[in-house]
Amino acid sequence: MKTCIICSGGLDSVSLAYRLAYEKHLSGIIAFDYNQRHKKELAYAAQCADNLNVPFHLVDVSSVGKAISGSALTDDIDVPEGHYAEETMKLTVVPNRNAIFLTIAFGIASANNMRAVAIAVHGGNHFIYPDCRPEFLEAFGIMENLSLECTVKLVAPYAGKTKADIIADGVQTGTPFAQTWSCYKGGNYHCGRCGTCVERREAFYLAGIDDPTYYEDDEFWKSCLKN
Amino acid sequence: MKTCIICSGGLDSVSLAYRLAYEKHLSGIIAFDYNQRHKKELAYAAQCADNLNVPFHLVDVSSVGKAISGSALTDDIDVPEGHYAEETMKLTVVPNRNAIFLTIAFGIASANNMRAVAIAVHGGNHFIYPDCRPEFLEAFGIMENLSLECTVKLVAPYAGKTKADIIADGVQTGTPFAQTWSCYKGGNYHCGRCGTCVERREAFYLAGIDDPTYYEDDEFWKSCLKN
Repeated sequence: MKTCIICSGGLDSVSLAYRLAYEKHLSGIIAFDYNQRHKKELAYAAQCADNLNVPFHLVDVSSVGKAISGSALTDDIDVPEGHYAEETMKLTVVPNRNAIFLTIAFGIASANNMRAVAIAVHGGNHFIYPDCRPEFLEAFGIMENLSLECTVKLVAPYAGKTKADIIADGVQTGTPFAQTWSCYKGGNYHCGRCGTCVERREAFYLAGIDDPTYYEDDEFWKSCLKN
Repeated sequence: MKTCIICSGGLDSVSLAYRLAYEKHLSGIIAFDYNQRHKKELAYAAQCADNLNVPFHLVDVSSVGKAISGSALTDDIDVPEGHYAEETMKLTVVPNRNAIFLTIAFGIASANNMRAVAIAVHGGNHFIYPDCRPEFLEAFGIMENLSLECTVKLVAPYAGKTKADIIADGVQTGTPFAQTWSCYKGGNYHCGRCGTCVERREAFYLAGIDDPTYYEDDEFWKSCLKN
């Protein structure tokens, strides 16, 4: 089933791209420039497309990012540090981001005769990002069935999994984790202190897999561990 | 209820902007540059915002328009001539366009504490554009309730009306029809032969209102009249 994937260059979406390629479904990678401060992730998405030998579509929606202000991911608000589960992480919500990315990806998929759009949302995102929850994904699929008259399917195989499960899956398909970018701060190295760095480091620990990432602060995540 | 409207600069959306302003709901106008060949419509949307004294958000999604090819509205395919009801008008479908515009507008509305997004789809669009049908609009509203946790409503008061009804409504609110642009060809004047010109001219006739538009071919629409 010809499938394109929305890929940020992060661990989750690169792992899913490798899973789709492993199963011979991958037909293209779509990445978005939405004026995110961690724009360097886009180079990792391009690298993934290159590694997997599929077309790379970089869609410039930076004008949308500017119009939608109020998130630490796009604005001058400081990126919060600590565990994702904390209240402060709500500052990283870009309102309606997944819905926007998905509708654009569905348009591209439809125009290019693809049969599915994949997105790598997972269980760990659910609490603070409403547009990562299973009920959102289901409603989105129903809406698109009507908009495009049933031609493109939504695929989200990690929706019921944890980030540790994704790492375990990525190991099976040969995902090069070192060639993925998570940090919201977008510096030279992963900071080790923002929500997505802490989540990444913790997930490798929970999966029992060596983390190949260099973090500027390699100890901070331990102070955020639950229990 | 603070409401922003997706406005193309066309007759329908400008009339709805005037209706919303008349009822004191209008808080902003959002227009999209999607690499449409009739880009001159955007100046009419800006003029509408200026007339009604509300902020104008021009969102550049031309990169999306380029990625979604295959429509006469964005590509080098000839714009078909004749009545909208004809099979050839399917060439003017940009896949998923309204869904894309709406998700972006919902993001902007949410970030700016607006309570509703208005779109001027109407009965006459239903047959060839699936993303203008009432069942699509309903599914879209449900999806957004989940994505944004119920903060923004979808408003489409013209969904059950004809274009002639819209003209009658526009007369009541003082809509300056001459300051609206419909033609898909985007020339100096309305061509009078493309689907949207024929529909516009016919609607004024059916509404019994004088059409202030200058058409290059002012007679063609009559040959397209049904019965």
